[in-house]
Amino acid sequence: MPPTFDMSLIQRGARLRRSPYFEATLAAGCQSYTVYNHMFLPTRYDDLHAEYEKLLNGVTVWDVSVERQVEITGPDAFEFTNLLTPRDLSKCAVGQGKYVLIGAADGGIVNDPVLLRLGENHFWLALADSDVLLYAKGVALNSGLDVEIREPDVSPMQVQGPKSKEVVRRLFGNDVLKLRYYWFLETDLDGIPVVVTRTGWSGEVGYEIYLRDGSRGVELWDRVMEAGRDLGISPTGPSDIRRIEAGILNYGIDMTLENNPYEVGLGWQVDHDQEGDFIGRAALARIAAEGPKRKLAGVEIAGDALDLNMTRWPVRGTGPGRADGDVIGFVTSAVHSPRLGRNIGYAMVPAASAVLGTRLSVTTPDGERDATVVPRPFVDPDKEIPKS
Amino acid sequence: MPPTFDMSLIQRGARLRRSPYFEATLAAGCQSYTVYNHMFLPTRYDDLHAEYEKLLNGVTVWDVSVERQVEITGPDAFEFTNLLTPRDLSKCAVGQGKYVLIGAADGGIVNDPVLLRLGENHFWLALADSDVLLYAKGVALNSGLDVEIREPDVSPMQVQGPKSKEVVRRLFGNDVLKLRYYWFLETDLDGIPVVVTRTGWSGEVGYEIYLRDGSRGVELWDRVMEAGRDLGISPTGPSDIRRIEAGILNYGIDMTLENNPYEVGLGWQVDHDQEGDFIGRAALARIAAEGPKRKLAGVEIAGDALDLNMTRWPVRGTGPGRADGDVIGFVTSAVHSPRLGRNIGYAMVPAASAVLGTRLSVTTPDGERDATVVPRPFVDPDKEIPKS
Repeated sequence: MPPTFDMSLIQRGARLRRSPYFEATLAAGCQSYTVYNHMFLPTRYDDLHAEYEKLLNGVTVWDVSVERQVEITGPDAFEFTNLLTPRDLSKCAVGQGKYVLIGAADGGIVNDPVLLRLGENHFWLALADSDVLLYAKGVALNSGLDVEIREPDVSPMQVQGPKSKEVVRRLFGNDVLKLRYYWFLETDLDGIPVVVTRTGWSGEVGYEIYLRDGSRGVELWDRVMEAGRDLGISPTGPSDIRRIEAGILNYGIDMTLENNPYEVGLGWQVDHDQEGDFIGRAALARIAAEGPKRKLAGVEIAGDALDLNMTRWPVRGTGPGRADGDVIGFVTSAVHSPRLGRNIGYAMVPAASAVLGTRLSVTTPDGERDATVVPRPFVDPDKEIPKS
Repeated sequence: MPPTFDMSLIQRGARLRRSPYFEATLAAGCQSYTVYNHMFLPTRYDDLHAEYEKLLNGVTVWDVSVERQVEITGPDAFEFTNLLTPRDLSKCAVGQGKYVLIGAADGGIVNDPVLLRLGENHFWLALADSDVLLYAKGVALNSGLDVEIREPDVSPMQVQGPKSKEVVRRLFGNDVLKLRYYWFLETDLDGIPVVVTRTGWSGEVGYEIYLRDGSRGVELWDRVMEAGRDLGISPTGPSDIRRIEAGILNYGIDMTLENNPYEVGLGWQVDHDQEGDFIGRAALARIAAEGPKRKLAGVEIAGDALDLNMTRWPVRGTGPGRADGDVIGFVTSAVHSPRLGRNIGYAMVPAASAVLGTRLSVTTPDGERDATVVPRPFVDPDKEIPKS
């Protein structure tokens, strides 16, 4: 057994919250945590490449209870939730989920949750790292809409990888295998109330189990582990290698409040022609017409294998005097893909420099590197998560 | 030199931001960071008791650039900012600051920033850990008020301790010594633009220097260190021991969105009779009339010295069968005060159990302990930060 992680390295006092699975993650030998939505997020139990291989070939379990929910209910919940996002939620059935953006008046991106529609007027938003609970409460104030907005006792875990299908089948029966992408099932595991969704942050086959009773986290964790024991199930952190291969974005770095959907390749999220109103409508129409000024480009970075970037790496345009040239943007995320044998990632650059084939230069901790704008996703585009 | 802190223990990728002082804090041997407002907050360079002694007797420097600012400008900035807080801002002059609460419609506390009034219609909120930028943008949407809300390039550091006066005098001249509590001075240090406030999170004499150009963080840090070298100036984390002695609350644990000002002893913040409107007015009037149902009590916990709590410790009422009794609340923060020789802290309990002298029982990691409700602050009440 490795020594238990020393939480005092990343916390002082009891301000940051622990997940219902926290004790299980510590016991499983979690070696690092980060902080997300004011909670601890387990990021690593093993070497990152070993975790990547487990995800590609087996089944992995991630404590992502940091994906806090905002629950919206009340007579005007549909209209209000539709206001929060540029997607047309009239196309989202009860029992269905959608990947959505939460928008600001200037077209900025507040968050990119998975939305679940549990009833005509009952929604959950499984959040990335920003206080949408506060944003939604602010928006509701003078909206004239009758809604209740709160954080329910709901804590997701992800079960990802090709063998995840068998694990959820054993736990929840054959019905769960019928789930289409982004649909969900409300069920229970011998009385532990859960929602099971066909979603994930990996590009692999995967599911999320949303625990609806925080007092039963370790119990659920143990049941999931037991169900996958003979399949080699392992707790891991989310894999940045795999999610970058899949072209998945990480809110807070690949997109922020400073970005609009068109800059980051998510313009398809904006349903301009919908009947309902939504925040940022005018700004997004203008940006769509004019085109975004900068774009998040897929990039391939030359040279030896790079570790995942810990800061934004400056990007320069090519041409004479390149290395001394002006910084035109920055790499948001980049990492070496073992199976591609290439360094891949994203760079936020002026739109003119985001054209496929554009040559760039990136300042990495290992020195200046050549880079090229390439398509994303990087791996098996047909197999990546559909736009739904 | 101690080994450089391994940031991969608490970060994955470049999502979380680094302070303008970050490189200086690493070089100074910072041994742990936590995350606050999506940024890294240095929490410790030395033993916590050694840092406490430095704060009590010398001068300490804290990188608190995590206190992100929300800047509110525009023709209706006064009216809008006054809406956000239950305090009457008509009593806040230009050049003056106030400790304020940001309120929700139900009376809940969204944040407890220091507000600075830089102009008639120009405000900064130096935030605790929640996304008030998003909340304020949400509130503004349908408010009908003409405001601009953004995060400016402003990064505070705290200079705290009895010798801080001499340090800021050397840096900024005698004028800064004339500052009354919560007032501020806009100035520069050989061209480095700053705002100097007489504020702090320590109960000691102290100042904050708000850097207004993030590219000059290390330069400012080095200047401050140089100015205090012969006084034994040291970088430290904020001291939980000292702030608890002073009765200062930590947003996110001692008070949260679930609490109203009356529960946490901040009812004096609510100016019911003001001319302007504010969010939560009706709810706070009702709570003021009825009295809060629970209260944050000062508590003294018996027995050997306790380390700062890392989780909420359950609190039980006294009486027969005490140890098996129902949990009636929890300790939010508690720590041993070396100079008092006592364990002190706060417990959120039903109002009837918050009466001075009430006996409680607390489940600590070291076992069940007797506790008593006592007045707060715990040290030199007359000398603690005035209510302004």
